[in-house]
Amino acid sequence: MNLIILQKEDRIDDFLYRIKDNRARHILEILKLDTGDTVEAGILNGPQGKAIIESVSGNTLILKCSDFTMMPAPAITIDLICAMPRPQTLRRVLRTIATMGVRKLFLIRANRVEKSYFHSPLLEPDNYTPYLIEGLAQGKLTRLPEVTIHKRFKPFFEDTLKDNAKDETGDALRLLADTETKRLLSKIYSDPRRVLLAIGPEGGWVPFEVALMKEIGFESFTLGQWLLRVESAVTAALAQIELLGRDST
Amino acid sequence: MNLIILQKEDRIDDFLYRIKDNRARHILEILKLDTGDTVEAGILNGPQGKAIIESVSGNTLILKCSDFTMMPAPAITIDLICAMPRPQTLRRVLRTIATMGVRKLFLIRANRVEKSYFHSPLLEPDNYTPYLIEGLAQGKLTRLPEVTIHKRFKPFFEDTLKDNAKDETGDALRLLADTETKRLLSKIYSDPRRVLLAIGPEGGWVPFEVALMKEIGFESFTLGQWLLRVESAVTAALAQIELLGRDST
Repeated sequence: MNLIILQKEDRIDDFLYRIKDNRARHILEILKLDTGDTVEAGILNGPQGKAIIESVSGNTLILKCSDFTMMPAPAITIDLICAMPRPQTLRRVLRTIATMGVRKLFLIRANRVEKSYFHSPLLEPDNYTPYLIEGLAQGKLTRLPEVTIHKRFKPFFEDTLKDNAKDETGDALRLLADTETKRLLSKIYSDPRRVLLAIGPEGGWVPFEVALMKEIGFESFTLGQWLLRVESAVTAALAQIELLGRDST
Repeated sequence: MNLIILQKEDRIDDFLYRIKDNRARHILEILKLDTGDTVEAGILNGPQGKAIIESVSGNTLILKCSDFTMMPAPAITIDLICAMPRPQTLRRVLRTIATMGVRKLFLIRANRVEKSYFHSPLLEPDNYTPYLIEGLAQGKLTRLPEVTIHKRFKPFFEDTLKDNAKDETGDALRLLADTETKRLLSKIYSDPRRVLLAIGPEGGWVPFEVALMKEIGFESFTLGQWLLRVESAVTAALAQIELLGRDST
């Protein structure tokens, strides 16, 4: 927990927040801080900075959060399309994308996705949001990624994505991680302000899916020689985009 | 499980292996295969190929493994130095390095490593090897990474590493992932055959450690703008090395 994430239900007055859950325990037991000390904190979808511990009473802390500032938006805005993984994998994907600053996560159906995954209780916002917040706290970020769920493959690409394309940040470079190609990301990377990255299911995309995505402008690339688990594929792809994106600035 | 990993204790005769644990359940229940079908299998530290299911008796399978071939060694040999993580993180690191083909893992002490981590039962080979094998099965690899544990920081770099440097594969490019630098990997990457990569503890290296590593030839670089968990930092670093390594071939 590199940042204590505060939410509106923690707020008790201007600049004052009360916490008494695992965040308070982290401050008291791991960081071993006390009244008058400062701790790095951020307000969900808001600014961050050094909070002062105003008081400690048992396991309840009051934090004072003045002089917080907004972090600049990342240089490249990344939205991720991810074939719906099994719940235990999804938890790791949620943490990973929040830590790595992904803006939107589209969880979609694909041929090699088990239908039952769409019935997981984890797909309720109240259930998945804690994993996103855990990821934000690791990455010292406050912007909560937006998660949407799409139960049909073709309508997602033909309809939903069209609306997403009309984005104030401009057109996205559409990238498709595919174990079937040998083309490296560096061969197609064009220094975009915005990337829409698609990561397939454990068993990979089926040919129909790749064909449809290519038709609407997705460029396929290989992450490398490996067969990675979904959350590792997400991390590897974002790491390569970061390297190429910064290299060109 | 993309590859069924067989070990010498499974061997019952030339080319014949008997399995009855989670590998057998995977073949029967997930892949839904039966006698006469083939399944991708590999022998630990040995060749791999398509095995024929000779017989099924309850939960016990006999696999016939003729015509197996050795996979070529990776183009770049990667050894990883990792500050000892907490056991739950170490499990994920073990899986990740096996999936991504790391040759050797040096688990070392660093200032921000808790001493208690060195007392974990997970550090017994019998306890950690299953996580490595799980990673190999994901990555379709058979070469078991070699894990060694080093309880003192300075002697590791001053003595142990000297022996490692005398490697038949030649000198390694020594890389140090460091959140304190802004230098990208692409600025220092020199197309080596061998990389020795150092990943720090959750709280980062302390200045003394960075100074000592730089003195013996480690080049620091940033993985990007993020604060990553250890296993994600490993994945991100290997993904960037892969991109640069293949790009230069």
